[in-house]
Amino acid sequence: MNSAPSIQKLLDELERLPGVGPKSAQRICYYLLNTEATQAIRLADAIHEVKEQVRFCETCFNYAESEQCDICASPVRSHAQICVVSEPKDIAPIERTGVFSGVYHVLHGVLSPLDGIGPDELKIAELLRRLSSDVPEEVIIATDPNVEGEATAAYLARLIRPLGVKVTRPASGLPVGGDLEYADEVTLGRAMEGRLEI
Amino acid sequence: MNSAPSIQKLLDELERLPGVGPKSAQRICYYLLNTEATQAIRLADAIHEVKEQVRFCETCFNYAESEQCDICASPVRSHAQICVVSEPKDIAPIERTGVFSGVYHVLHGVLSPLDGIGPDELKIAELLRRLSSDVPEEVIIATDPNVEGEATAAYLARLIRPLGVKVTRPASGLPVGGDLEYADEVTLGRAMEGRLEI
Repeated sequence: MNSAPSIQKLLDELERLPGVGPKSAQRICYYLLNTEATQAIRLADAIHEVKEQVRFCETCFNYAESEQCDICASPVRSHAQICVVSEPKDIAPIERTGVFSGVYHVLHGVLSPLDGIGPDELKIAELLRRLSSDVPEEVIIATDPNVEGEATAAYLARLIRPLGVKVTRPASGLPVGGDLEYADEVTLGRAMEGRLEI
Repeated sequence: MNSAPSIQKLLDELERLPGVGPKSAQRICYYLLNTEATQAIRLADAIHEVKEQVRFCETCFNYAESEQCDICASPVRSHAQICVVSEPKDIAPIERTGVFSGVYHVLHGVLSPLDGIGPDELKIAELLRRLSSDVPEEVIIATDPNVEGEATAAYLARLIRPLGVKVTRPASGLPVGGDLEYADEVTLGRAMEGRLEI
């Protein structure tokens, strides 16, 4: 029993968040109760703002606040390389590497026949339209290295290669700082196959 | 680099929450982006509501939405037993046990001379005033069983006992379902001292 219904309501809403169980919901709730009103309201306002202002970029389907996302609109990004990812959240980790200066295309999913997700459910037609109007040099298909991700990459490669565009995929191999002893066979096999001269 | 400033703002606010690091902030942020607008807005509204409506109960200093919290105002709660806790968040776990039907008093801290927290920083004067106007049969001091909690309990007991009120403290002992082998010496010692006939 909570002595204030509004507290119970906040707890219920917090528990819906991913990775937030009853204990963390309570911790966050008491934090919000004890913190300055301005700070708690800043969080509430940030949620409002995101839901009001964020839509999808008309070019790449990343999150954006206007017709084009900041990456597509940026004059310093090369449109000769398009990196295809399955979700908008995959863009941030690639951006953090600092090695990619091209643009993105977000599929919003991967092929998964068992879940009823075929090519029409993904932004594949939009990708092909984009490729036909402004042919890039290279399309990097950075879907996850799992069954659906690999299948989606293979499917896209078959569609894109005939357009005369180089299609690549990020290397599989040993994680940097990892331990050879603990690498799984498939990863180590890929690392051996993809070995580079030093 | 995030393609939408409002997303970065929400991420910053989420990272301020206790137990929410950059990874969980991102997970929650993308969840809020992908979920229906109504659900995200419900969370924002719940935060607003809590900050607008929640204040402290004038009797026990628990969170409340009116002059008195639901527990103090409830006709089924006995005012003959007052359970003293250090923070409002300590009330929920005691309520969940279902064995206590009295009322509470929240100190809003524990004595901690090193942090400059003396009796005047806690709701101790308010507790004594409460005891003098409506003498209960028993005061249960349920501060945490650590150094500060024990010291605070001892201090309060010295003040309250002269009023002719029984002062108790929840038993220390082995956790139910726990393992004797793994109990620390102090806890096991307390459990042995507090042994009950069966």
